[in-house]
Amino acid sequence: MPNWLLPENIADILPSEARKIEELRRALLDHFRLFGYELVMPPLLEYIESLLTGAGQDTDLRTFKLVDQMSGRTMGLRSDMTTQVARIDAHLLNRRSVTRLCYAGSVLQTRPSGLHATREPLQIGAEIYGHAGLEADAEIQELVLGCLALANIRDVRLDLCHVGVLRTLLAADPLAKAQENTLFALLEAKDLPSIDKLSQNFSAEVRAALLALPGLYGDASVIARARAVLPAMKGIDLALDELEYLVNLTGGAHVTIDLADLRGYHYHSGVMFNVFVPGLPNAVARGGRYDHVGEAFGRLRPATGFSLDLRELARLLPTAERKGAIRAPWGSEQLLREKIAQLRSEGEIVIQSMPGHESEQDEFDCNRALTFDGGKWILQNVG
Amino acid sequence: MPNWLLPENIADILPSEARKIEELRRALLDHFRLFGYELVMPPLLEYIESLLTGAGQDTDLRTFKLVDQMSGRTMGLRSDMTTQVARIDAHLLNRRSVTRLCYAGSVLQTRPSGLHATREPLQIGAEIYGHAGLEADAEIQELVLGCLALANIRDVRLDLCHVGVLRTLLAADPLAKAQENTLFALLEAKDLPSIDKLSQNFSAEVRAALLALPGLYGDASVIARARAVLPAMKGIDLALDELEYLVNLTGGAHVTIDLADLRGYHYHSGVMFNVFVPGLPNAVARGGRYDHVGEAFGRLRPATGFSLDLRELARLLPTAERKGAIRAPWGSEQLLREKIAQLRSEGEIVIQSMPGHESEQDEFDCNRALTFDGGKWILQNVG
Repeated sequence: MPNWLLPENIADILPSEARKIEELRRALLDHFRLFGYELVMPPLLEYIESLLTGAGQDTDLRTFKLVDQMSGRTMGLRSDMTTQVARIDAHLLNRRSVTRLCYAGSVLQTRPSGLHATREPLQIGAEIYGHAGLEADAEIQELVLGCLALANIRDVRLDLCHVGVLRTLLAADPLAKAQENTLFALLEAKDLPSIDKLSQNFSAEVRAALLALPGLYGDASVIARARAVLPAMKGIDLALDELEYLVNLTGGAHVTIDLADLRGYHYHSGVMFNVFVPGLPNAVARGGRYDHVGEAFGRLRPATGFSLDLRELARLLPTAERKGAIRAPWGSEQLLREKIAQLRSEGEIVIQSMPGHESEQDEFDCNRALTFDGGKWILQNVG
Repeated sequence: MPNWLLPENIADILPSEARKIEELRRALLDHFRLFGYELVMPPLLEYIESLLTGAGQDTDLRTFKLVDQMSGRTMGLRSDMTTQVARIDAHLLNRRSVTRLCYAGSVLQTRPSGLHATREPLQIGAEIYGHAGLEADAEIQELVLGCLALANIRDVRLDLCHVGVLRTLLAADPLAKAQENTLFALLEAKDLPSIDKLSQNFSAEVRAALLALPGLYGDASVIARARAVLPAMKGIDLALDELEYLVNLTGGAHVTIDLADLRGYHYHSGVMFNVFVPGLPNAVARGGRYDHVGEAFGRLRPATGFSLDLRELARLLPTAERKGAIRAPWGSEQLLREKIAQLRSEGEIVIQSMPGHESEQDEFDCNRALTFDGGKWILQNVG
């Protein structure tokens, strides 16, 4: 086996792609900052006790484990940064005020989420802690839509859902509650026959609601349909009110509802959302409310946020245009060095040819050259 | 043990420090780009066969190992990115022309390099492949000095050394060659009594030279002293010629020579350098020539480069001044939203207060507030 072969679903990022990712990374972090989000950088490695706190079994299985030679304890490589940022809010910053944090970094996963998915996503996201109201959810949704606008992506669809609907139904029927995980999977798959079979002994009200959920998706009118079809339970009414409020706030954006899209159900505590863009079957960004996240670190604070994979988003962008560069000869003469330094300080890319390599093609588009003429160095256009 | 405790020599980076690191990261990558260096992003994980190829035992011990569930093979977490970038040059890009690459990313180490050193340095660096001449070394040195100038660090000292001196001496005496690793350690420690004892059976010429090496450090005049003291061997003459050429090129920079500073000796193939700055006992940046690096990937190309730890460099910077921000009320009215969007598009940080949190102190310096006056939103200075 050749020694340059990389593991499956692990790849190098070459210059043209790296440039796109770097530019998008900067644009998104700057965007977050304009909203008052502060950058934090949690570590790649933590003890599993902190890394997996409050995370589900999925995260545990996705997390690479290592033994720390210094302590003999087991560490994990982060497969998601959300819990880390919650730990920073809860323990390190420990502010009483509303706190806005953002982050960008690699995460690693033992298994890819799909056949061609990377095991090393570049996760970027933002979180707001300390405000339980929907205004925080609205701000996060505005933030994520702004990210996609910065990436020049059109036809973005914001798909809203809410854990409160299923939670309320299950709380109303112990038999249904006992089947929570199975039901969750069947609803995700919109598998009506199996839901029908599984729910035969549930209360009639809950059963009817569970059978209705997979059909409750579409535009904002789904909320009205849900009010008609689902039982009048306080938790369901509240969930539908919250969705309605957020739909009304999003203004011009293309918003849809899917009450059976429960990915993240175990993790979230209120409104959840997925963002879809043309060309990608899966959501490009995900987020929602998870008010319990800081609890394990001794600090129960309301929290809502989102994250996306920068690598995936960057792939949707067209290849960046190559910036014109200037070819200069190698030399240590003062005049040449000053001219090169001046051009670079003006933002020009100046590439000095190494002696013997003057005729080489370069990856940069060297459309100008520095030449010595009339006692000074001047720029000349080239082929 | 509290569950938020991080492993030893692993730490979160909080907002003020993260901001400095991010700004420095951008400044350095932009600097590299102005010289024509293209950004690449190698993965955090590779099979150890590629990651540790050509690396010494030191790197092996510093590298965390994992089993890949998908292949059953052993992977390593990179503890250094240099070999990865050489692999990209050799195998993926496979250009015949001179190639300039740069990178920035976390590396992980099983054990810290010192009591307070991080096990997760943020390595940033640049490499030039395909040119064996000293012009490439000179460009790399110009690049690293430019990095420190961008970080506003004064009194930078560039310390040059060269593996050729010791290599030539050892090649001239099989008895000395047999003690290579021991000698290397003793020279690093400038332990003259032990060198004296170890070298009793070496040839007189080599012995005298080994005993002279630890004293051959200081300003550029060391080169002339070395020519007088060291034996006239071709490899030594060549090494001293190379050092002299580079010293002359550096112009105004503060350059020193240390012929016994052999850190990286096993890895490098020519000129090596360390950059020292006030306040740090160890070198802040290291680099040099290692022409063999691509050989293991089937492509022997001349190579020279440098790297530094962004976290360490950022710690030397003063805390960034807090940028003034604007406090705005929460609200969904069109006029307010438009005003906020306009201010953000002008680069202003606008923080919307969440309802009920209007009186909270913010980490940002909110020196202005948006208030509604005379039918429009205006900016007001606040205490």
